[in-house]
Amino acid sequence: MALDKNKVLKAHKKVGGKIRTAPSVALKSKDDWSTFYTPGVGLISEHLAQYPRDARVMSFKKNSVAVVSDGSAVLGLGNLGPYGALPVMEGKALIFKSVADIDAVPIVLDTHDPDEIVRTVIAIAPAFGAINLEDIAAPQCFDIERRLIKALDIPVMHDDQHGTAVVVLAGLINAAKVTKRDLNTSRVVVNGVGAAGTAVMRLIKKFAPHVRIVALDSQGVIGVGRGDLNADKRALISDRIVFAGGDGDLSSAIQGADIFIGLSKAGVLSGELIKKMNKHPVIFALANPVPEIMPDEAIRAGAAVVATGRGDFDNQVNNALAFPGIFRGLLDSGAKKVTDKMQLAAARALAELIKKPTAKNIMPSVMDSRVVKAVARAVARAV
Amino acid sequence: MALDKNKVLKAHKKVGGKIRTAPSVALKSKDDWSTFYTPGVGLISEHLAQYPRDARVMSFKKNSVAVVSDGSAVLGLGNLGPYGALPVMEGKALIFKSVADIDAVPIVLDTHDPDEIVRTVIAIAPAFGAINLEDIAAPQCFDIERRLIKALDIPVMHDDQHGTAVVVLAGLINAAKVTKRDLNTSRVVVNGVGAAGTAVMRLIKKFAPHVRIVALDSQGVIGVGRGDLNADKRALISDRIVFAGGDGDLSSAIQGADIFIGLSKAGVLSGELIKKMNKHPVIFALANPVPEIMPDEAIRAGAAVVATGRGDFDNQVNNALAFPGIFRGLLDSGAKKVTDKMQLAAARALAELIKKPTAKNIMPSVMDSRVVKAVARAVARAV
Repeated sequence: MALDKNKVLKAHKKVGGKIRTAPSVALKSKDDWSTFYTPGVGLISEHLAQYPRDARVMSFKKNSVAVVSDGSAVLGLGNLGPYGALPVMEGKALIFKSVADIDAVPIVLDTHDPDEIVRTVIAIAPAFGAINLEDIAAPQCFDIERRLIKALDIPVMHDDQHGTAVVVLAGLINAAKVTKRDLNTSRVVVNGVGAAGTAVMRLIKKFAPHVRIVALDSQGVIGVGRGDLNADKRALISDRIVFAGGDGDLSSAIQGADIFIGLSKAGVLSGELIKKMNKHPVIFALANPVPEIMPDEAIRAGAAVVATGRGDFDNQVNNALAFPGIFRGLLDSGAKKVTDKMQLAAARALAELIKKPTAKNIMPSVMDSRVVKAVARAVARAV
Repeated sequence: MALDKNKVLKAHKKVGGKIRTAPSVALKSKDDWSTFYTPGVGLISEHLAQYPRDARVMSFKKNSVAVVSDGSAVLGLGNLGPYGALPVMEGKALIFKSVADIDAVPIVLDTHDPDEIVRTVIAIAPAFGAINLEDIAAPQCFDIERRLIKALDIPVMHDDQHGTAVVVLAGLINAAKVTKRDLNTSRVVVNGVGAAGTAVMRLIKKFAPHVRIVALDSQGVIGVGRGDLNADKRALISDRIVFAGGDGDLSSAIQGADIFIGLSKAGVLSGELIKKMNKHPVIFALANPVPEIMPDEAIRAGAAVVATGRGDFDNQVNNALAFPGIFRGLLDSGAKKVTDKMQLAAARALAELIKKPTAKNIMPSVMDSRVVKAVARAVARAV
């Protein structure tokens, strides 16, 4: 897809903010003013000060999500800061409203300090029914999410981790069907051990405990021989998420693998490498906007199923398939945490929307109106 | 006005949040998705990372205001905390949208620590075009506002201070006309030296430098003999805002005064006290929801003009007459600060909307569509 930068800039200039506010009630009469503003609102203030839980019934908190980023890892573009993050958070808020009727607010933070991010999100949490962390770089994102989950009584989810994990697992479930594989006996190579890669591996392992995963970061295979691993990467070994006996690089790790999942960067996979894989391999080349390998090249090299993050190729694995429904389900059910069970249920529900998966059709479209309902219901039922 | 608590509760339960979000663009085609979300949005992210000022042109920041409170002084109800503050901030967001087409977001803070409030607002500022501080108790509110004005390159205004000052001055301008007074030769008693009282006095003094103001807090007249004054109250003396030679209580201070402005609490003024004032006195009894004296009682005691904060009496002096237009003017003009000049211009513009003020008609109605335009234009011209 050729992106016309001028066209995109012009469209954004014309629109200004992609999301805006709207009144829920008309302020027409004096009675409207005195019911919803002073003096009437004082009664609600006193009520909520005494019964804060009722904020979920009679305030903005009922249906609101803060989409929070520090801009440290905007899309695949790196640290662009809060202003670089803003258009993406607005885009998510636009999607939240358009497909799931959720009132999401873009919040971009003028700090990269994890303590400051945690403090800020805790401070602003009361007006929101849930927190969607977004585009925060690894490894800080793991600790920030953990601390916020612990501190708050509303669901907190870093979408780069768990939204991605849900859509990738959904795609894998159907890709396995197409290639007649059992994930529990498959060998998977995950290239990229950032926010997304880490969560993807952990969720796949929950779904198929016997799957064998080899993971690689930019320095090679994550294994016991590596002295340079941070705590979150070491935990992949100690938690037995990855097969950690190996070492080496992608060209040795990919030998005989069934599935390649790239959450890394443009162009790191080649047809040569795909030819070293098991027969009818599955390639998820999810780097955005330029994938690890272009689909046509992967297919020429023998790939049976190819997915990317892009809407202009078949099999788009896009978080927009998961986050609106997940948060819809969280708000509808009043859940206080996002659980593995919910994520597994969401992935299964997404996969099941494709009755007969084929090589070119493993994922529903982001414009398929069944998606949000199916995911929301699955999440709410898993509470 | 008899407020029916059940009716107000029911209305809020039915509505949920009084403000919601709305898409600015329809996500219909694949092209819409790729323009406003990935991959197109990445171009805007890169652009804004490089040219943050363009966030005012092509992002939510163009038209957004954060309405921020810690709930430490909700209406006249005291410290109700963030959940108690939420319905009021939503009400303001509703008014912002309904009358001034501003995208305002309620932000209620789970902290009363001034340092933490300042840090949090700085951290979340990038997505917003301006900050409306609200219902933060004095004296912390003064320092919090000062520090935020200094730290941020967007306008920051504590509405309890300056919005109130603008509407009170507008009302006084017309009350002076009705009673044929010159404010510069008038004696004013201000009862209540919190956020509102302090700002009201300072703005009146800018408008009429020779006005003689005597101010009282709960301990009596603010004067040089008082050893218990905080820095902001002492500054009223050193800045020559108040006439500080006196001492005593309201009953001595009100002797011979022309104008009483109450920003204090229910019932502290009596007909007896009004009778001690100059002829045809002006009474602004602005405590909410129950004023310092009821209008009928004030009139029986000889008051020539009576104003309250309520919509069910004549002459409603309500911040909703000022804040939507002030912020509309700030956003339209790209101003970086709120100045005295803007506040004076806004007050004059508000007053001038009443061509021939009478005892029962010194203020325009909050439902008068001319109000926002007149105030916004006055503010923008004063930049």
